[in-house]
Amino acid sequence: MEGITVALDLMGGDFGPRMSVPAIKQALTFYSDLNIIAYGREHEVIGLLRSENLTDNSRVEFINAADVVYNDENPISALRHKRQSSLWKAIEAVSNHKAMGAVSAGNTGAMVAIANHLLGNISGIHRSALVKVLPSLNKNGTVFLDLGANLHCDQEVLCQFAIMGSVLASEHLKIDNPRVAILNVGRENCKGSEVLQKASELLKQYKGINYIGYAEGNDIFSDYADVVVTDGFSGNIALKTAEGLYRVIEKKIYGNSSLLHKILIPLKNIVKSRITHMQPDGFNGSSLIGLNGVVVKSHGAADTSALVNAMAQAYRECKNQMPRQIADGLVNLKGA
Amino acid sequence: MEGITVALDLMGGDFGPRMSVPAIKQALTFYSDLNIIAYGREHEVIGLLRSENLTDNSRVEFINAADVVYNDENPISALRHKRQSSLWKAIEAVSNHKAMGAVSAGNTGAMVAIANHLLGNISGIHRSALVKVLPSLNKNGTVFLDLGANLHCDQEVLCQFAIMGSVLASEHLKIDNPRVAILNVGRENCKGSEVLQKASELLKQYKGINYIGYAEGNDIFSDYADVVVTDGFSGNIALKTAEGLYRVIEKKIYGNSSLLHKILIPLKNIVKSRITHMQPDGFNGSSLIGLNGVVVKSHGAADTSALVNAMAQAYRECKNQMPRQIADGLVNLKGA
Repeated sequence: MEGITVALDLMGGDFGPRMSVPAIKQALTFYSDLNIIAYGREHEVIGLLRSENLTDNSRVEFINAADVVYNDENPISALRHKRQSSLWKAIEAVSNHKAMGAVSAGNTGAMVAIANHLLGNISGIHRSALVKVLPSLNKNGTVFLDLGANLHCDQEVLCQFAIMGSVLASEHLKIDNPRVAILNVGRENCKGSEVLQKASELLKQYKGINYIGYAEGNDIFSDYADVVVTDGFSGNIALKTAEGLYRVIEKKIYGNSSLLHKILIPLKNIVKSRITHMQPDGFNGSSLIGLNGVVVKSHGAADTSALVNAMAQAYRECKNQMPRQIADGLVNLKGA
Repeated sequence: MEGITVALDLMGGDFGPRMSVPAIKQALTFYSDLNIIAYGREHEVIGLLRSENLTDNSRVEFINAADVVYNDENPISALRHKRQSSLWKAIEAVSNHKAMGAVSAGNTGAMVAIANHLLGNISGIHRSALVKVLPSLNKNGTVFLDLGANLHCDQEVLCQFAIMGSVLASEHLKIDNPRVAILNVGRENCKGSEVLQKASELLKQYKGINYIGYAEGNDIFSDYADVVVTDGFSGNIALKTAEGLYRVIEKKIYGNSSLLHKILIPLKNIVKSRITHMQPDGFNGSSLIGLNGVVVKSHGAADTSALVNAMAQAYRECKNQMPRQIADGLVNLKGA
């Protein structure tokens, strides 16, 4: 296939093929040079593929994967025993250069473990990181990492995340001289653990990075920094907390069946249009960066449109050659 | 003075006496048996006290405190050198039994250090914790701790937080058999650090606690648990992240001066009334629990009404004798 080829794990996520098969069809309409290799259990997906007329589409290749990685499966166990799974096969397609990128809505831990194993890190990078561009008062959003690929990070790893985030912000989001901050419990120098303080000292020494010091949780959504760096535990907690609050606010505004609500229906869409883009997990997936290949994780509860967005994100990262951008950015930084 | 006496640090917070002096007047109107001892630098507050007619009010005692703890001050330094500060004096009033509780909008770290030093822990408690009842889909909100009193906690400390949170939920919020969870990156047993896994095992053994396992960030605002326990680093990040997102959503909905906005004015108040109670930091302060006395921290950016709410919270905790409730709850749990 010519163009950009993305490998898709059809079985991942809470809804599996019911959401992922229709997502293929929609994604193909977005980019005329996008091709998809779809992996899943044939008997579970073939009917859906047929009903969407995808079995004889020259831009879609379906490959049977006999096994599935479940959501509650231990990553190490998945790494050892699930080499026939749709998740493994999709990432393997990237390592075999059959596809440039892989997308899954499945088990995050397993995805990270398998991707680390099969793709390997960009030269000079110790650990890959899950990153997301969060909606914020910044024009282009805030680059936030790590979202859970590495629960605990030492200062060196945090610094590499800062560098990768900075490269992503400048090369991919076209932010000039992006402001980089470390997430902490206060902006003051004295705050936080020894690891954070050491990471802060290291980042002050990198001349190629516009390090502005510590940021607090509320700064993620403000216009304080372009890149906010933290370990995977805090990053995961922060992201899911924001998602949870957004869902509840959404429910409070729209989810009422009272008479008042019915009167409000015409206005509800106006409010919705104003805040929908603030949805922390609405319109994009998380990218696993630092690897020799593009890997995008869609939310486990992703519906078809969220999956389409994750595929579009993978397409763009492939098109922009993000792994190479990061590798080049690292070299440039070292030379700065 | 008879009734409930609360000591107030007039100098704390981003706005100091400008917000705290008017707050005294408002708080007094809420509870007829509330008395206030106010501490601050006389030359900075006396004019404001006079203009609010508070200098000859029998329910208000003003005491000059020559010094101030600043927001960026190191807690250890404040503990050593700021014994003449309004923050120290307000907490000292509790340890001297001149007041039952203290309120400040000042430096959180210094407040925790001074309160730990002057008040001491309830028997059997190793560490005090900052706790807040967050708005959620739960009828009574979700008890969330620690918010930053202890950045890193071992399993024993996390268990004690779980116990204190459970007592608070049942005794103070009147929740029957409150569901207690530990914050983690997933609900599955295999998730998280060794400390979290050990804490989880310990809590399964406490028969007096309804421990339901791990909760994720989004569960804080759902109806999944009544008490969510975490270390002070993650708790602080989660709370401030939620605050930040709420502020941005609020701004997106209300803060537009376009024509569309003007048309929306009648709607805005309806939407506001629906989501205002979801404001993570709107209507209450954080309580420092586990100590022999009531201490409430109001947000640093608190305006007068937020400070009044923090004072009302301190009043209710004093009235309900929360420190004794926690002590009794611990004894009952051990007997369970």
